[in-house]
Amino acid sequence: VSGRNREEGRSVLSKAFAILDALREAQVDLTRAQLARRTGLPLTTVHRLATELCEYGALELTERKTYRVGPWLWEIGTLSAHTRTFRHVALPFMQDLYEATHENVQLAVPDGLDALVIERVRGRTSVRITSRVGGRLPLHSTGVGKAILAFSPLELQEAVIARGLPAITAYTITEPDVLRRELIETRERGYSITRMEMGLNSASVGVPILGIDDEVLGAISLIVEASRADVARLAAPIRAVARGISRQLAAHEHRPQGARGEG
Amino acid sequence: VSGRNREEGRSVLSKAFAILDALREAQVDLTRAQLARRTGLPLTTVHRLATELCEYGALELTERKTYRVGPWLWEIGTLSAHTRTFRHVALPFMQDLYEATHENVQLAVPDGLDALVIERVRGRTSVRITSRVGGRLPLHSTGVGKAILAFSPLELQEAVIARGLPAITAYTITEPDVLRRELIETRERGYSITRMEMGLNSASVGVPILGIDDEVLGAISLIVEASRADVARLAAPIRAVARGISRQLAAHEHRPQGARGEG
Repeated sequence: VSGRNREEGRSVLSKAFAILDALREAQVDLTRAQLARRTGLPLTTVHRLATELCEYGALELTERKTYRVGPWLWEIGTLSAHTRTFRHVALPFMQDLYEATHENVQLAVPDGLDALVIERVRGRTSVRITSRVGGRLPLHSTGVGKAILAFSPLELQEAVIARGLPAITAYTITEPDVLRRELIETRERGYSITRMEMGLNSASVGVPILGIDDEVLGAISLIVEASRADVARLAAPIRAVARGISRQLAAHEHRPQGARGEG
Repeated sequence: VSGRNREEGRSVLSKAFAILDALREAQVDLTRAQLARRTGLPLTTVHRLATELCEYGALELTERKTYRVGPWLWEIGTLSAHTRTFRHVALPFMQDLYEATHENVQLAVPDGLDALVIERVRGRTSVRITSRVGGRLPLHSTGVGKAILAFSPLELQEAVIARGLPAITAYTITEPDVLRRELIETRERGYSITRMEMGLNSASVGVPILGIDDEVLGAISLIVEASRADVARLAAPIRAVARGISRQLAAHEHRPQGARGEG
């Protein structure tokens, strides 16, 4: 099916949003040709719509002739309520955890078959990681991911396994039965551990954040140097923080907003 | 001019983006009628476009029949490069400052006649403030704002004054000449001070972050309880951090990205 055929019957809005969605999936800037390939739209249509999107500040044309998301969309996106309460409630707890450890603290929520990173705290001495707020992480190879998966319904676990378990490093769990066993152990233990499964220089410990009915709202993790032998010792403070966030989230629903303050 | 007349000649995309922009300006959810009033579009057009925007996850219809920004837009917005390097470089320094003080640390950039908050660090003991990442703050009444304004060209100062200096509290500077004097003092001192100018419970100290040619890239501030008498003492650590961020930003331009790591 050529791009031209796939264009029929699509509204202008749906085409413009297909362009934005292609950038979301790619997570990097794309050329006009790449956008055409990913959306199935003709080059001329991509050019016309992308040019209009640039006028609104939704996109920017870079010096390398690629399109990237513009500042106007960032500002609008910050208004999304989806994860705002969660981030707002969790951040002070994450600060406490950072201050006690000086390691990367990461907060993620389940989203489809991925974990979506919604907040991060890190300092200058924390091990370098490339995950970013708004980025996605695999559920089978990360601390937050395995914590989410272990406490989620079996259907989600099997859907992730059915999609395939790509090897990020030589240590990533890629065998379905090994992952199933690991998730049972994670659940019994109460927290996940990864060792070089996502990067050879890092290890992590993840704890689920549970709702009132024990449903998985998200997970919080610490990411440390892989050479640290005492990774499991980090579980206790993370679990305390995860419980604090759960409690606060339950209480938050009926609390009014705070007073106005200086900038 | 009726909404219908103003609709003529506008493309579908421009109408859809007018709806998103109305939400950006309002910073709160809006009803269909409010969106029609703010965009000058007929109710039926707003209804049709908003319904389509909901299908893509760009908007959500709340239980109170208002429209709000959806999670899909948040995820896309996080890809904006506009402020990403700045936030990435500044965050570890902000963590240091938070850890030394346990107060609100705020990072903002000039954007038109406002300051745009691009990062915040705060803990459970920090004074409550309502500013948020992605939100806008006045330049004449906030720590970051006065720091930005004092080191910006006179044209910006006069444009802000010409727009008017709204009183946020009884202590906000609303007289042009008082503000002009204050900005000269701020520049000589090297940092701004606000006392109850944005909220009666808070005070702040702001320091500009300067580029290679001494242009104002942004500002960083600490926001503390108004009752703290030693506000000016906070200036020294903030200035150290602002210098560190400036240096790192200058160095960052040619540095490669870090290695992949666990989640």
